[in-house]
Amino acid sequence: MSNAVSLLAWTSLLRAVATPSTTPASVPASAPVGQPPAQLVGAALSTDRPYQRLRHLTDHIGPRLAGSVGLETAVKWALAELAADHLESVRADPVAVPHWVRGEERARLLQPMARPLPVLGLGGTIGTPPGGITAPVVGVRSMAELPALGDRARGAIVLFNCAMPPELPPFDAYDKAYDCRSDSASAAAKLGAQAVLVRSLTTRSLQTLHTGTLWYDDKVKQIPATSVTIEDAELIQRALDRGEPVRVQLELGARRLPDARSANVIAEWRGRERPDEIVLIGAHLDSWDVGTGAQDNGSGVVVAMEVVGVLQRQGLRPRRTVRVVLFTNEENGMKGAYDYFKQHGAEHHVAVIEIDRGAGRPTGWSVDGSPGTLARVQELAGPLLSIGADRVEAGFAGVDVIPLTRAGVAGLELEADASHYFDVHHCAADTFEKVDRRDLALQTAAATALVWQLAESVDPLPPGVRKKTDQE
Amino acid sequence: MSNAVSLLAWTSLLRAVATPSTTPASVPASAPVGQPPAQLVGAALSTDRPYQRLRHLTDHIGPRLAGSVGLETAVKWALAELAADHLESVRADPVAVPHWVRGEERARLLQPMARPLPVLGLGGTIGTPPGGITAPVVGVRSMAELPALGDRARGAIVLFNCAMPPELPPFDAYDKAYDCRSDSASAAAKLGAQAVLVRSLTTRSLQTLHTGTLWYDDKVKQIPATSVTIEDAELIQRALDRGEPVRVQLELGARRLPDARSANVIAEWRGRERPDEIVLIGAHLDSWDVGTGAQDNGSGVVVAMEVVGVLQRQGLRPRRTVRVVLFTNEENGMKGAYDYFKQHGAEHHVAVIEIDRGAGRPTGWSVDGSPGTLARVQELAGPLLSIGADRVEAGFAGVDVIPLTRAGVAGLELEADASHYFDVHHCAADTFEKVDRRDLALQTAAATALVWQLAESVDPLPPGVRKKTDQE
Repeated sequence: MSNAVSLLAWTSLLRAVATPSTTPASVPASAPVGQPPAQLVGAALSTDRPYQRLRHLTDHIGPRLAGSVGLETAVKWALAELAADHLESVRADPVAVPHWVRGEERARLLQPMARPLPVLGLGGTIGTPPGGITAPVVGVRSMAELPALGDRARGAIVLFNCAMPPELPPFDAYDKAYDCRSDSASAAAKLGAQAVLVRSLTTRSLQTLHTGTLWYDDKVKQIPATSVTIEDAELIQRALDRGEPVRVQLELGARRLPDARSANVIAEWRGRERPDEIVLIGAHLDSWDVGTGAQDNGSGVVVAMEVVGVLQRQGLRPRRTVRVVLFTNEENGMKGAYDYFKQHGAEHHVAVIEIDRGAGRPTGWSVDGSPGTLARVQELAGPLLSIGADRVEAGFAGVDVIPLTRAGVAGLELEADASHYFDVHHCAADTFEKVDRRDLALQTAAATALVWQLAESVDPLPPGVRKKTDQE
Repeated sequence: MSNAVSLLAWTSLLRAVATPSTTPASVPASAPVGQPPAQLVGAALSTDRPYQRLRHLTDHIGPRLAGSVGLETAVKWALAELAADHLESVRADPVAVPHWVRGEERARLLQPMARPLPVLGLGGTIGTPPGGITAPVVGVRSMAELPALGDRARGAIVLFNCAMPPELPPFDAYDKAYDCRSDSASAAAKLGAQAVLVRSLTTRSLQTLHTGTLWYDDKVKQIPATSVTIEDAELIQRALDRGEPVRVQLELGARRLPDARSANVIAEWRGRERPDEIVLIGAHLDSWDVGTGAQDNGSGVVVAMEVVGVLQRQGLRPRRTVRVVLFTNEENGMKGAYDYFKQHGAEHHVAVIEIDRGAGRPTGWSVDGSPGTLARVQELAGPLLSIGADRVEAGFAGVDVIPLTRAGVAGLELEADASHYFDVHHCAADTFEKVDRRDLALQTAAATALVWQLAESVDPLPPGVRKKTDQE
């Protein structure tokens, strides 16, 4: 059965499922906010649609890097699915996205012993010159140690053996080591280095490679950058610590092609009383080119796609508009986020919710807003105590909603158990079978219930905090 | 610094360390068995030599498959180390070993979606014919399900998606799924299959491939066999379960070359009273060609190599001879084990101990012997309560000592926490940094103390049980 046939069969199935609820019962304006959350949690837990959609998105459509056929297929699939569910104003907002391709990659450790060195280029890296780069390796354990290398970095390949501190919560640990991936190439280039090797950002490795975006500084010569496994970073470190010379040969075939066409997928469930007030729930449809983006961010996509379906099947149309946005190009450019803001930033967003912290059991909400926002979310999330998703903390609200939250829109991100998320993050191992069916249903339940609360509550959510834009 | 220079420097260092103890104090024949174990545990825990040797064996010598330069280098290194430690009768018993080489490997999933399929050929597999094999895939979840495939296996590639039951202890779970790796090629060939894909034998995977030996039935046509990851086995299974066609293209470059020369490395610490009574402690020096065999079985090798060193530094020469044997070719032929038995099987082995269950914290002893053997080992292992290594159970005693235990010699294997052993077993991820320094020292302590007890105890260990040899 081809993908096309499968998609048709699937769409028909969904249509059949969705039919009974396409004409929702009217809901009185005075509907109490207290009751529906429990009802919505129950309804979300009784559907397997997000899980089955995730299987299709990962097993059949596969990886979805900006510029790839996979992403284009995913856009078409999502549009068809949302239309089949009878969401409103289903559309694709065109977005031009960077088109980076990995090409062939090959490396060898020449000293302290000769053997192949598994590598996975960082997203956006340039390729190596013809014949590759062969150079001695010098190393640091953090960006802070880099200046001390001084002249020893000149002509060398610099290893950034920056560990995610295992004692920190997973996302904090990731943030701690993040600059070694994002900024190391340009920082090392300033010292005259030829290339960088970056320890994969994870805490558990089975010779596992993790990619992710790097950012080149416009003022510095671009040099190639690749991840290596924790195992190999530690092997090189042990050799360097003993004064044994380390030498590596590196060939990366990466290229940047002309920008490609992609799209943000948008669909709505119009508000019955205040349709111009928008509660946005989003995730990103793109993924890295390795693995199938099951948790980054396929699971977020299928949760966001299901929220309106659950409301429909309960006959609920809230006071405000629920807008589902599947952003493109979160991983290597944020063009979807910026373009959405350009086109829709002036509209009245009451709250923006992103689902992008993996497919673990939901635990609560990270809120980017004022103290008033935080207090109100705490109140609205109260009923999620029943599924353990009621912990509300001030924090980051997701990459795709950064332009909106900077402009002062209240942002929320679903927090989930991330104790195994970075095992597979940006990695070939980010695949379907690691997603727990029940956890995914719990995420759908948490998201649906909170979206309902935000969209139905008579008092709107207190806004967020406008940030200085000089950081943009 | 080249390996050769490094080895010299290393050898000199060890010589310097070993010097004070080359003339051990005499020990009275009536030395109580009760005291030395505690003293030996303390001494073993205070040395870092096994850990440093393991680093050299894995980081510098690397993988050690039968027929490889790595194994040859390891044999020379072990001989030099044991000689430098002033063990006695240090020698290499020549062994002819199979010489299998992996060659280039490449596979593609063609349906349900087109993408590369990571594969790692099973040890001993034949290669594919020129142009590879392209065929539909059919699947089973156990050997027992195979006959039901019937004609559907003809011309197909058969997936053996046999899971290690996660609820069983690790080695029991491994044994449960083992036949799907060892016997699947010939079993599927009987039904006319073209090749087999075998789910990697592990319970945790990050797109991780695990190799291991297969055994061809002489009476059946040989067909190629490769491991696939759990992730891909599950993806294929999901497709098959829904009736979606699965098609794979497979190219394996494996070849069998003429037998190569290798050796069992043997060294002794001669008994002061009954030198002809032998307590053998062994491990296998060979490994698979992926990873560096840190836990399979580098850790066992360095533990076995250190036992006599600890005795020497405590000035102890036991009543019986302690013989250290580093077997060759455990992984894909057992030629070292069989040749050792041919050459030395008639000698008086009081006990044979193998250390080959990974580098986890030691928990006790698996004993292949009579009820009398078991009871006596329980008594002798009693003092190991202090380090938690006193649990004694009837069981298997290790692959390399099978010919000896079949002949009725009492066999013991060190049991260790194996909860993460199969994560890296026969896998590129079996590397040095996953070995815990303290656990390795505890293994050395447990092994040294028990070897002392067995070699010093006035009453010899009651013998094991001779098995029927028709199984050989």
